[in-house]
Amino acid sequence: MATPSWLDVPEGSHFSLANIPFGIISPPDSTERHAAVAVGSHVLDLAIFSAENGFAALESFSAHANNAFSLPVLNYFAALGRAVHREVRSYLRSMFLQDSPHAQILKNNESLRRRCLFRLDDVRTHVPMSIGDYTDFYAGANHAYNVGVLFRGANNALQPNYTHLPVGYHGRASSIVISGTPVRRPWGQVLQNAASDPKEPTFRPCAKLDFELELAAFVCTANPLGQPVTLAQAEENIFGYVLMNDWSARDVQAWEYVPLGPFGSKNFATTISPWIILADALEPFRAKGLENKSRLSPYLVPSRADTALDIDLQVDLTTTAGHRTTITCTNAKNLLWSFPQMLTHHTITGCPLNVGDLLGSGTISGSTPGSQGSLLEQNRNGTAAIELRGEEQRLFLQDGDTITITGCCGTSAGSRDLVGFGSCRGTIEAALLKTH
Amino acid sequence: MATPSWLDVPEGSHFSLANIPFGIISPPDSTERHAAVAVGSHVLDLAIFSAENGFAALESFSAHANNAFSLPVLNYFAALGRAVHREVRSYLRSMFLQDSPHAQILKNNESLRRRCLFRLDDVRTHVPMSIGDYTDFYAGANHAYNVGVLFRGANNALQPNYTHLPVGYHGRASSIVISGTPVRRPWGQVLQNAASDPKEPTFRPCAKLDFELELAAFVCTANPLGQPVTLAQAEENIFGYVLMNDWSARDVQAWEYVPLGPFGSKNFATTISPWIILADALEPFRAKGLENKSRLSPYLVPSRADTALDIDLQVDLTTTAGHRTTITCTNAKNLLWSFPQMLTHHTITGCPLNVGDLLGSGTISGSTPGSQGSLLEQNRNGTAAIELRGEEQRLFLQDGDTITITGCCGTSAGSRDLVGFGSCRGTIEAALLKTH
Repeated sequence: MATPSWLDVPEGSHFSLANIPFGIISPPDSTERHAAVAVGSHVLDLAIFSAENGFAALESFSAHANNAFSLPVLNYFAALGRAVHREVRSYLRSMFLQDSPHAQILKNNESLRRRCLFRLDDVRTHVPMSIGDYTDFYAGANHAYNVGVLFRGANNALQPNYTHLPVGYHGRASSIVISGTPVRRPWGQVLQNAASDPKEPTFRPCAKLDFELELAAFVCTANPLGQPVTLAQAEENIFGYVLMNDWSARDVQAWEYVPLGPFGSKNFATTISPWIILADALEPFRAKGLENKSRLSPYLVPSRADTALDIDLQVDLTTTAGHRTTITCTNAKNLLWSFPQMLTHHTITGCPLNVGDLLGSGTISGSTPGSQGSLLEQNRNGTAAIELRGEEQRLFLQDGDTITITGCCGTSAGSRDLVGFGSCRGTIEAALLKTH
Repeated sequence: MATPSWLDVPEGSHFSLANIPFGIISPPDSTERHAAVAVGSHVLDLAIFSAENGFAALESFSAHANNAFSLPVLNYFAALGRAVHREVRSYLRSMFLQDSPHAQILKNNESLRRRCLFRLDDVRTHVPMSIGDYTDFYAGANHAYNVGVLFRGANNALQPNYTHLPVGYHGRASSIVISGTPVRRPWGQVLQNAASDPKEPTFRPCAKLDFELELAAFVCTANPLGQPVTLAQAEENIFGYVLMNDWSARDVQAWEYVPLGPFGSKNFATTISPWIILADALEPFRAKGLENKSRLSPYLVPSRADTALDIDLQVDLTTTAGHRTTITCTNAKNLLWSFPQMLTHHTITGCPLNVGDLLGSGTISGSTPGSQGSLLEQNRNGTAAIELRGEEQRLFLQDGDTITITGCCGTSAGSRDLVGFGSCRGTIEAALLKTH
């Protein structure tokens, strides 16, 4: 039985009262950007709600509410810290509970409801944070192994450093887009004839366009230049999580990536889901991640075993004909490194993180067929097409294909109070006819 | 004979009337951040000057002046585009000319001069732009070759892609600091015994701390997601240039960098010089860069040969004992790719650049001893110490060492109207005693 609410929360909704995720919306018929939370099939517009004194009953926060929620991004609210997020989330949840003393704030005020409670379908969502820097890690050990086998064979699949530190690289913040944004197939240099000598690239639209299934965390606490963040502190520095699709041009990547890593093959678009699931909402779903048998440097040794998150993840591919096929089912436990470990490692040199910075997990894959978080793995580097409904096959993405990532906690346990991410979706647009 | 000014412009000043570089300062006894230009040993505070109606005589710009110069960064001014930069720079220059009709604006107004004309020594400088994303290229072909020889031998020194595209990677924007900021020696994982099997890293302060001599460009025009910038347009999208020191922890880099590139080894600090030399000020110093014999993809083919910049570059190392040794003399012509080529390549996938984004050249090295832009090259991967004044030697940087990069156009031609960058300076601080 789901937690009873006076608001209709449909069975199976990702946004149960156990969730209360935060995002940025444009209200119906508006181009403004407002902070909001999602509840069932509705959103509560926090910019309007706080301006209407909706937080008056939460005394510790009421003086901050307008500052926190009158901005077009959630950075200010995030920076207030996890103790405040916890209070505000709990207060908002109590407003929607059937028999809570706070229920009357909205339930009995139709005029206020009409001004700040909208149907989810009627609002547009936006990138919820101002993202200064974006870093993508490579913590999906099955993915790293699968890709390593394809390119270096099973004996050298993982590099020697892999189990000693969370390998990562600086990504491109400017091309992070919100779920639903079309993704244009990029142009780039590719090596069509790998045997040619000297090697001569061809300039053309990417022919090996891929997705990457990832989880990503937003930072809520800045550390100053020169001051590393301990692993214990790192837990407190994470605001919440979104799903991420790190679109990848595999043919561009293969040619460009030595010796400094992926660049153009990843910088044309990275899609995130719109609702930030707060770290506290995911606490009940802590779990063990992949086992790491290496002796870790002291700064990376966790004080507890359950530092991963038990989130069921799914990737669907929908063709232009409308056929939808689930091509990946896996779980966010398939990470060798936790997000706090990633954050701590990021700062161990003294690198400053800022509020709103985004940390990606790297591609999350299981170790069995149908659980891999990229086409590159599923098609074994372009050699084995996958079967789709509607009698289609795919090696890599075609124009018009839509990739939808979904993630949810509690489904496998049969919970009625789901904590889900909604979806992270993007459709491939044809490449430009010419670039110059 | 230098261009005559009513203001004393010392002989040999980098900031002659041919320059007029823009930066952000705090006026004496103030913590505010104001736009400014440097002239000789003085700075003109543009926030105060524009608020005092100093741009009234420049009709095309006077309505924009307060918006452009009342911010703590130059992004707004940069975004007005090169035609406006040209007009404003020309106007400001004319104010300082001995016999210009505009000379009276400041020359004959002692009260105004007292309010907005300060001695350079009396102001503090700041990072001049809000930097969304920072990208570092690898266009110094001699550097790439020198490093390649050290790690892969002369026959495989350059990767096959090197002469076909400007190799680059996304850097860390949050740790870009202004000249003079101390640089704390980072901790990190290093492989002290490369022969150990399995390879086990040690966690310790970096023992191979290095500098990298670079030039960097600020972007002044944004391109939307999905829209590449042509090479012709790219020239117009560059606001100006600064010197850059991309501090590098070589021992950390060697262990961490496969397969996704440098991360912690570069993200602890990147120092830039404070004064942005506008693209127009460098027009007279266009020159040919390094020859590229590869057949280029059409988007990278330049329409003119002189796309490099003839800037004499120098690196000095000063020890705690105060001995200063010039360890590098080279020139910015030592690049295989021009900044417009880097910018165009960056956007060819559709990656959006924003106003204020920073593009680094990669390490600039000559091909002869004493011309290499990093210690790694000079000490041949830690095997040959370099000699310093004061009877000291160095493999890598010691605590207390100061690296000062300077750059100037026109010195070798004996010009009295120098267009220089001033300096880009940082001193190494001891590592933290412990990180956790």
